[in-house]
Amino acid sequence: MNAVVMHAAGGPDVLRVEQVPEPSPAGGESLVDVTFAGLNFDDLDQRADPGRKVPAVLGVDAVGIRRRDGRRVAALLRTGGGYAQVVAAPDVHTVEVPDDLDDRQAVALFEQGATAYGALMLAGRLRPGETVAVSAAAGGVGHLAVQLALTLGAGSVIGITGTAAKQAFVTAQGAEALVEGTGTDLGARLRELTGGRGVDVFLDSVGGARTQSALTGLAPFGRLVTLGWRPGGHVDVPLRRLIEQSVGCAGFWMRHVVDDRELLCHIAQTLFEFARRGRLVAHVDRVVGLRDVAAAHAALAARATVGKVLIDVNRES
Amino acid sequence: MNAVVMHAAGGPDVLRVEQVPEPSPAGGESLVDVTFAGLNFDDLDQRADPGRKVPAVLGVDAVGIRRRDGRRVAALLRTGGGYAQVVAAPDVHTVEVPDDLDDRQAVALFEQGATAYGALMLAGRLRPGETVAVSAAAGGVGHLAVQLALTLGAGSVIGITGTAAKQAFVTAQGAEALVEGTGTDLGARLRELTGGRGVDVFLDSVGGARTQSALTGLAPFGRLVTLGWRPGGHVDVPLRRLIEQSVGCAGFWMRHVVDDRELLCHIAQTLFEFARRGRLVAHVDRVVGLRDVAAAHAALAARATVGKVLIDVNRES
Repeated sequence: MNAVVMHAAGGPDVLRVEQVPEPSPAGGESLVDVTFAGLNFDDLDQRADPGRKVPAVLGVDAVGIRRRDGRRVAALLRTGGGYAQVVAAPDVHTVEVPDDLDDRQAVALFEQGATAYGALMLAGRLRPGETVAVSAAAGGVGHLAVQLALTLGAGSVIGITGTAAKQAFVTAQGAEALVEGTGTDLGARLRELTGGRGVDVFLDSVGGARTQSALTGLAPFGRLVTLGWRPGGHVDVPLRRLIEQSVGCAGFWMRHVVDDRELLCHIAQTLFEFARRGRLVAHVDRVVGLRDVAAAHAALAARATVGKVLIDVNRES
Repeated sequence: MNAVVMHAAGGPDVLRVEQVPEPSPAGGESLVDVTFAGLNFDDLDQRADPGRKVPAVLGVDAVGIRRRDGRRVAALLRTGGGYAQVVAAPDVHTVEVPDDLDDRQAVALFEQGATAYGALMLAGRLRPGETVAVSAAAGGVGHLAVQLALTLGAGSVIGITGTAAKQAFVTAQGAEALVEGTGTDLGARLRELTGGRGVDVFLDSVGGARTQSALTGLAPFGRLVTLGWRPGGHVDVPLRRLIEQSVGCAGFWMRHVVDDRELLCHIAQTLFEFARRGRLVAHVDRVVGLRDVAAAHAALAARATVGKVLIDVNRES
């Protein structure tokens, strides 16, 4: 089979298409003949991480046909392996895809939709009528978080993006767009946009001074949910600040969903049902062949993509 | 009228009964002829604070008859004044007491019950079936938090107390008692008591290493709610820890309830309704006269009280 293999950590050029043997499924795993695999932002860190064991195949989400029963399934691959024509998918991290949901939507929704859902509902504990602000609102997770928040009853959603070029896309998802430039006082802008009250839930994936500023833009009893931070962006939050404003900070890591089969299935069903009812549509930025994965990594790093980037693992290019 | 006045910051002996003029109500305030006033833990800090303007009358909660209309009311007094026979109560912080709820219950429930409610529901975002752990579970706020959590649908409640002597009281509130000694690994104990899972909501009022330990005793998507800390107990919470466990930290300050009239009334009605249905009973540790307030302060500081301490401002002693 063909796969994108890396033999050393580094830039996008370490990603090369090779012919490799099919994976051997361990106990509790099943082979899946992949149609589409997903790119995720975290893949870039994995690629550049000198601690990553090589040779390695990256990629944590895929959709295709499970060989043993011919079922169409979507799978999460916590240890990678997705950039390939065949994957060994853990059964506990695999869900069946409803007939009327196509492969591209299924894989674009599963990992990133579950992240958006978990951040909003499990960590953010969103209640109907509340105001939500989403960082990186044109991204794979971000644009689904905007749609999900509205579908789950948010009163209004502010979508934050760093470039004016993505503003129209963010608005099309149903959010009020906030274009953030260098020097933007994010907390002040959030208060302005909410009549002085602040937002109830803030999804953060940036960290640093921006997170500190966002905290000041929370309403009483508001929650900042962190999904991670850019290099150097880790911060400590003093309890004093949380009390002074009666606000909270929560972390969300998909691992705690993935480790809970019942929860994972509930979330997948919710996402797929919303998609079937037309309430949730994953935007696919581009579909590339295996040979173009390196270029797609570069585009993701340059924040030149909008929504999800997919790999058609069987495309000849 | 008689009041307990302090002319300098210091120990309990700075609290002296004096005859002073009745307060003059400002705009938006009404005179209330007090029957009972409450003692709160924060009063001890106020008494010892050299920055506190003197002469001062402490006391932030009282119940009595509003002079202008003869209604029985409970009032929150954010700037003090409660240890007195007459108070000038801000109308926006005053609620009427239902006929079938006695004065002692009303004043014992209002401030401390609203704190417990806010910590559980607004900051802690408790959902039915969840597990709650309450620090200082035999205290004025703590014992109400135990009862409220159960009434609001918690699956089980762990009541933490520092002394074995209070264990039976904590159990009588409906909680499983955890007696915490020096060197107790609180996180490990919380996990043990929940079959390894951890608790969903932890109410904290201690801070320091104990808060750090309690964080490790949270279940995925659990929330630690801080109401404050003992001297030297302030801590910073790294976002990394919140992500690693998918947990949250929130602060709760009553000011954010008090500043929202609609919310304050909703909470008071909820508490009073629970009390009328027998689902919430404030335990009154003792009722003292104005002359015994200094001794009551000493008892509170020694953690020798269980539940609420009240002042019968008209008692001759």
